[in-house]
Amino acid sequence: MNNFPLIGITMGDPAGIGPEVALKAVSDKSIYEFCHPLIIGDAAVIKKTIRLIGLKLKVNSITNIEDINNQSNVVDVYDLKNVDVENVKFGVVSADAGNAAFEAIKKAIDLALENKIDATVTGPINKESLNLAGHKFAGHTEIFSRFTNTKKCAMLLADDSLKVIHVSTHLSLSEACKLVKKERIIEVIELLHEGLKKLGVENPVIGVAGLNPHAGDGGLFGTEEINEIIPAIETANANGFIIEGPIPADTLFLKARYGKYDGCVAMYHDQGHIPFKLNGFTWDNNNQTMSSVRGVNITLGLPIIRVSVDHGTAFEIAGKGIASAEAMLLSIKYASQMVNKYRKTNK
Amino acid sequence: MNNFPLIGITMGDPAGIGPEVALKAVSDKSIYEFCHPLIIGDAAVIKKTIRLIGLKLKVNSITNIEDINNQSNVVDVYDLKNVDVENVKFGVVSADAGNAAFEAIKKAIDLALENKIDATVTGPINKESLNLAGHKFAGHTEIFSRFTNTKKCAMLLADDSLKVIHVSTHLSLSEACKLVKKERIIEVIELLHEGLKKLGVENPVIGVAGLNPHAGDGGLFGTEEINEIIPAIETANANGFIIEGPIPADTLFLKARYGKYDGCVAMYHDQGHIPFKLNGFTWDNNNQTMSSVRGVNITLGLPIIRVSVDHGTAFEIAGKGIASAEAMLLSIKYASQMVNKYRKTNK
Repeated sequence: MNNFPLIGITMGDPAGIGPEVALKAVSDKSIYEFCHPLIIGDAAVIKKTIRLIGLKLKVNSITNIEDINNQSNVVDVYDLKNVDVENVKFGVVSADAGNAAFEAIKKAIDLALENKIDATVTGPINKESLNLAGHKFAGHTEIFSRFTNTKKCAMLLADDSLKVIHVSTHLSLSEACKLVKKERIIEVIELLHEGLKKLGVENPVIGVAGLNPHAGDGGLFGTEEINEIIPAIETANANGFIIEGPIPADTLFLKARYGKYDGCVAMYHDQGHIPFKLNGFTWDNNNQTMSSVRGVNITLGLPIIRVSVDHGTAFEIAGKGIASAEAMLLSIKYASQMVNKYRKTNK
Repeated sequence: MNNFPLIGITMGDPAGIGPEVALKAVSDKSIYEFCHPLIIGDAAVIKKTIRLIGLKLKVNSITNIEDINNQSNVVDVYDLKNVDVENVKFGVVSADAGNAAFEAIKKAIDLALENKIDATVTGPINKESLNLAGHKFAGHTEIFSRFTNTKKCAMLLADDSLKVIHVSTHLSLSEACKLVKKERIIEVIELLHEGLKKLGVENPVIGVAGLNPHAGDGGLFGTEEINEIIPAIETANANGFIIEGPIPADTLFLKARYGKYDGCVAMYHDQGHIPFKLNGFTWDNNNQTMSSVRGVNITLGLPIIRVSVDHGTAFEIAGKGIASAEAMLLSIKYASQMVNKYRKTNK
């Protein structure tokens, strides 16, 4: 085998588009030019999906990393043998599907911690199915934090023109306003700086958003900029980071998109997600589906590499063979880039 | 004279790019195919700006609408004779500039109320200069509301692919969260519906954003959707409007941009401004300037038509001749469209 990064790809919820986008990605010959992919999940689901979408792929079902194959048109599947394909229906929430998704994630984390794979890429899961199966997590990030014993982590949204980290994500906007605190802002600046370096940016220039309209306009429209954001930026700059802001959110992401900033700090979920999705996603109004999804999601702060597609299980189109694998391909590309950067830095 | 809409264009703050973009717009031959423009401001400023940017235009200085000319290469200026061009410097805040900007707006409102012009288009003003001159208004909208005795109005951001209205604008985000109330949401839905019809959309389909991430995810991340937004949408639909939502803000504007909605309701300033500017503006990272600005701003609820460029005075590039007139041209186009629609409806 060559020395390409070995990327473990969890298939996600078997009732969603996860298996399909994973297979479409690994059947794209270009990825074998920079990595070796290994799907982690259930081989029967993978075989069924191959038939369904009409791919010319064979499956090498393994339970031992040493058994990885080197042939073309053969996809390696780390087989957890945990799905009864007759019982798991596309687009239907179920404990069985949730459990299968969870076990694939757990296995990927273990393989990465044991250095048997170089990085993890995760397919989309359904939170309801996950919870039905008794796994009480809000999402992937919480599962990865728990099983890698990570305290401080944050999600980085990334595509080729925008990289965005958030001060907070899944809570109400009025709660999010209260979490705009100097200490947390410094923490995400540090995580973003580290993450950008892992992606190969040597001296990251980071733009920090204001919380309020016009970044507060000197205190006229809110005081969080004066009391929390500016002090955080001053501290970070004193510590050697290259940070600008607070920048009004309605121009920060625009400027970053055209090259002014390597990365952006968003103060709350939608502040970062609105520009990120508008920039990288395309809506097909005839078919009422997302026709292009270029965003990926990188969890920063973990001891292992984890990249994820930035879309959901898309139950409404699962099993139809029409899902776009762009985000999955980009996720595998970013994960491989991070492995190579890591190897270069630590050799 | 033909029957084209007569559009009064205020020159804005004479220290900013307002006079320049107005002149660039009126020297664009295409606008004479659908309207007759009249600059409202100071003729000396206009003449100085023509020399500065090297346009081949003559000025017809008038104080009476009947004196409008019909020649090519001659621009009509309703001359307020209120600027000492030696004393007003580009890029410098001053009471003189603020007062000149204010008087042009006041004259435009009066001319429109007297039906001497068909619509107003406003150039950018500097709030500090305005206040220094003793005119204590937060901006154009407040001036227009006051002098037209308007109680309910709202700003519509518009370009060719997005139309966005806001539940609130210039106040802190935590205050904005508290203003997400059923009654106000219904009010802006009605204003948006009316505004879209004025722009020629026969049966407007409107998407309403959630306030919280994932539009609250069924109450998990905030309750404003359940308590205020959903009831407002239900009431509006019962009243015959076509309203969908609450839609997570990170997909609403994306879907609207690709045609799913004729207009969007944003719950706060940045929620609407972030996608709008990312969609219509372009940042030139080499020159560190906005190289394209396609957005306009329409004040809904007024008894007269008012369209404005959606950019500021850009003091840093004022007098350099490099400002883009795209937004000004688009503003004049939208104002003319609204006049024609009004004439058609009321003939």
